[in-house]
Amino acid sequence: MTKRSFAVAVVLLVFLGLALGCCSKCEQEDVAVQTDPLPSWNEGAAKQSIVDFVERVTDETGLDFVPVAERIATFDNDGTLWAEQPVYSQLFFAIDRVKAMAAEHPEWTSQQPFKAVLEGDMEALAASGEHGLLELVMATHAGMTTEEFEGIVAEWLVTAKHPTTGRAFTEMVYQPMLELLDYLRANDFKTFIISGGGIEFMRPWTEAVYGIPPDQVVGSSIKTRFEMGEHGPVLVRLPEINFIDDKADKPVAIWRYIGQRPIAAFGNSDGDLQMLQWTAAGDGASFMLYVHHDDADREWAYDRKSHIGRLDKGLEEAEAGGWTVVSMKDDWGRIFDWE
Amino acid sequence: MTKRSFAVAVVLLVFLGLALGCCSKCEQEDVAVQTDPLPSWNEGAAKQSIVDFVERVTDETGLDFVPVAERIATFDNDGTLWAEQPVYSQLFFAIDRVKAMAAEHPEWTSQQPFKAVLEGDMEALAASGEHGLLELVMATHAGMTTEEFEGIVAEWLVTAKHPTTGRAFTEMVYQPMLELLDYLRANDFKTFIISGGGIEFMRPWTEAVYGIPPDQVVGSSIKTRFEMGEHGPVLVRLPEINFIDDKADKPVAIWRYIGQRPIAAFGNSDGDLQMLQWTAAGDGASFMLYVHHDDADREWAYDRKSHIGRLDKGLEEAEAGGWTVVSMKDDWGRIFDWE
Repeated sequence: MTKRSFAVAVVLLVFLGLALGCCSKCEQEDVAVQTDPLPSWNEGAAKQSIVDFVERVTDETGLDFVPVAERIATFDNDGTLWAEQPVYSQLFFAIDRVKAMAAEHPEWTSQQPFKAVLEGDMEALAASGEHGLLELVMATHAGMTTEEFEGIVAEWLVTAKHPTTGRAFTEMVYQPMLELLDYLRANDFKTFIISGGGIEFMRPWTEAVYGIPPDQVVGSSIKTRFEMGEHGPVLVRLPEINFIDDKADKPVAIWRYIGQRPIAAFGNSDGDLQMLQWTAAGDGASFMLYVHHDDADREWAYDRKSHIGRLDKGLEEAEAGGWTVVSMKDDWGRIFDWE
Repeated sequence: MTKRSFAVAVVLLVFLGLALGCCSKCEQEDVAVQTDPLPSWNEGAAKQSIVDFVERVTDETGLDFVPVAERIATFDNDGTLWAEQPVYSQLFFAIDRVKAMAAEHPEWTSQQPFKAVLEGDMEALAASGEHGLLELVMATHAGMTTEEFEGIVAEWLVTAKHPTTGRAFTEMVYQPMLELLDYLRANDFKTFIISGGGIEFMRPWTEAVYGIPPDQVVGSSIKTRFEMGEHGPVLVRLPEINFIDDKADKPVAIWRYIGQRPIAAFGNSDGDLQMLQWTAAGDGASFMLYVHHDDADREWAYDRKSHIGRLDKGLEEAEAGGWTVVSMKDDWGRIFDWE
């Protein structure tokens, strides 16, 4: 090699090094595409239906192609993304709040439903019915600023433990659903939560746990009021229901918050039925999925007769409509990350 | 050059070509950073304040750095992103709808405020007050499905012309604000509309015109109801107010829809004041901007005494708080794209 050609080669090698470094990102993306995006899902009809749907709507040459802007996927939370047994996590939160606030409320020792909570009398609490639960929520979720409440939720999540597993509540999320959320987002879906649970009980942690930012979380809410506080303007939480995001009001909430009909919807109970029906009635391709809790060993088994997360009419509509019904027992190789 | 070193050089050149092709995207991004992102803004304090703020919150080594997830920017629409004179575009829409629907409503020829609209009597329309305007909105915006209304708005936008410029209403948007939206998004801000206007009047066109998708548009709304229609489930628009997104309810709406306090807020009237106050009261760096309509030649000049888009208290708070006040006359080299 002559000196001159050697110099040329060196210059080219330097350029090549720079250029290849620049390309490493693209290469990494290529590798990711080739691995199984749903490793906790057993091979079978449920997993296949998901992959088929995603491939159909992202194939630009196909009849079912859906532009990125319309790839909206909505997920119920309790029982769909995380466990809802023995009762909703938010009820454990309310109970813990009643105990923490009891010293300031001596009247609670003789007043239902607070008395029941303080005495650990779950039967009396259940007997207080919806009205009693609403009173619990108002007493524990209102009367502070939005930022104070956010702090209370965040602190509770760090300390509270699930009563049967001893795990943090944010560890009670379903690993296969986390993979599904990632898989949809990798295919340019925008993922939303549409939950009957409190919107502000979810928002402090959904980004870290599900990768879903606060503005893509929809739930039930109480009213707030803008006030000039001592240290400037604040929003105060009022003991007044704004919206209950359940059943026929789930499509209403989707339209109000998202302004588009989803092309994919995921739930686990009759409370999600109208969301799935409305999704199914869209013009183009659509995908509806029910998580069926049928694994008493690894999670809980409940459906048609359960007080929490009842799935009865939904199972029939799913069968009639050819929707995907996931058997947690058969379709999920792993339910929780820590199994 | 020897044959061997020539061959080496050729191989390297081929690699280099591939590699440079792969890098062209990165290069384009580098070039974009070097060009002025706000070409329709004249050099001056207003433009400089925007650039300074964006550089401060995106500088990872600085004290004012804001993580991407918290880069929330909220924009009023009427008078901030598009023109609101001689009256709000949505009122022109309602007037056109009354005319289009009049044949089915013979009673309107003798019933206010419809009579005023049909006779073009703007004085009588104004005299009907807020109650009259609400009646107009209910009669023209409710009683159909959400998808039917979406179609009506989209069709109107194609045919309707602004009365003084003869332009489509979607051409009445401010070019400097479009550049600002792009600039913020290029710096990983998430941009939202927080408008007193109807949420479903905006959503059909905000993505195409502003690059803001439907789920990032917040506005006033009427209620909807989920119903099983002839051809499946639909959402029907009801003649009942759900929420008026104005003044102290703008921060309420931001919290309800976004769940985060903005770090930057943009408005043009006293109706935006609480949104700007609440933004200013955040913990970290924040940026508040008022568009001041002071260019009677190229647009309109109005502020403290205007019935539409009154800016009075806001001007004083902006001065006291050191917020940016944009003079459309001095700070904007071009107002409309088609000038």
